[in-house]
Amino acid sequence: MTRTLTRKGLATRQRIIEGAAAEIREHGVLATTLDDIRARTDTSKSQLFHYFPEGKEELLLAVARHEADQVLADQRPQLGELTSWPAWSAWRDRVVDRYRRQKLDCPINYLVSELGRSTPGAQAVVVELLHTWQEEIAVGIRHMQGLGEIDPGLDTERAAAALLAGIQGGVVVLMSTGRIAHLEAALDAGIESLRASGRRARSDAA
Amino acid sequence: MTRTLTRKGLATRQRIIEGAAAEIREHGVLATTLDDIRARTDTSKSQLFHYFPEGKEELLLAVARHEADQVLADQRPQLGELTSWPAWSAWRDRVVDRYRRQKLDCPINYLVSELGRSTPGAQAVVVELLHTWQEEIAVGIRHMQGLGEIDPGLDTERAAAALLAGIQGGVVVLMSTGRIAHLEAALDAGIESLRASGRRARSDAA
Repeated sequence: MTRTLTRKGLATRQRIIEGAAAEIREHGVLATTLDDIRARTDTSKSQLFHYFPEGKEELLLAVARHEADQVLADQRPQLGELTSWPAWSAWRDRVVDRYRRQKLDCPINYLVSELGRSTPGAQAVVVELLHTWQEEIAVGIRHMQGLGEIDPGLDTERAAAALLAGIQGGVVVLMSTGRIAHLEAALDAGIESLRASGRRARSDAA
Repeated sequence: MTRTLTRKGLATRQRIIEGAAAEIREHGVLATTLDDIRARTDTSKSQLFHYFPEGKEELLLAVARHEADQVLADQRPQLGELTSWPAWSAWRDRVVDRYRRQKLDCPINYLVSELGRSTPGAQAVVVELLHTWQEEIAVGIRHMQGLGEIDPGLDTERAAAALLAGIQGGVVVLMSTGRIAHLEAALDAGIESLRASGRRARSDAA
């Protein structure tokens, strides 16, 4: 669907998305109706229809995209600046802190469950989020490989995929058990393993 | 609730659980009714009530427990025999193979979502599964530490937690994207990192 919104229209649309996201964070996807969202964002039925002509599913998808962007935004600028070991450590702390605050409520998880894995749009949001996240980690690994701090012979994409999997698993365990230890262990072990590969490569070369 | 079932009663109860598990795997939790389960397992209403007096939630919980046991059973005997690097490699292949076959359908995930994270029983099933899984990995790590194949100075529980997180994350990515690469990368990087720690410890000692 191609629609051109004015700057003001875009701002209104964004305001509705943010209000819906807040409502869903507070009450859950299932308990949130379009009327709740209209009340919270002070929007009429015709306005809601104007911005989301395909209805609730279109709005929920926009909220999922918004929450996915937020996951990455919450890790910045650290995620984009993995250029030294203290910087990696700062990013690690940032991720742990974000999920410690979020605890059991993972809006993306709920939204995607609700929209269904079979909805191509919802799945695409998750695939895109994971892809961007992994790419940004890979940029950091590549940078450290350039400095000789990570073994240049390491498969960058695979190393980034392993670290991303550790983070996702840590978050899943946190959501299932309320404990953050697995997220911390996965990040620490993953980063230490990258670091050790660099030490090994340097000592082999010496 | 304390109830003593005869051996035959236990077998019937188990037959109902397994039939319910199969029905749920095929049609999903939401689409499965007690009538479907009765039809599949050739059970009367009073029989179902006899074995699961608290109704659908009690039955679903029993199915979740059954599926959790299955997750570990599918990794045996390899998971219990992590006593050499070829054995670790065999376990790794077993896990990858299990999830490759399972693909997007993770019965536990669906059951726990349905029962709700707020149902203490459902959460306990997941916590128990993760705990046992991690303990069995830790036994393997400890064994290899005893052989000097993994750095004896490594925090065993933390190392096991990191590896378990990598597996969970790999499974989540598989369920979200259909790609198994993250699970493979997490297992390979995790095991390689344990192995490298042993080489390092040995070379430091030499």
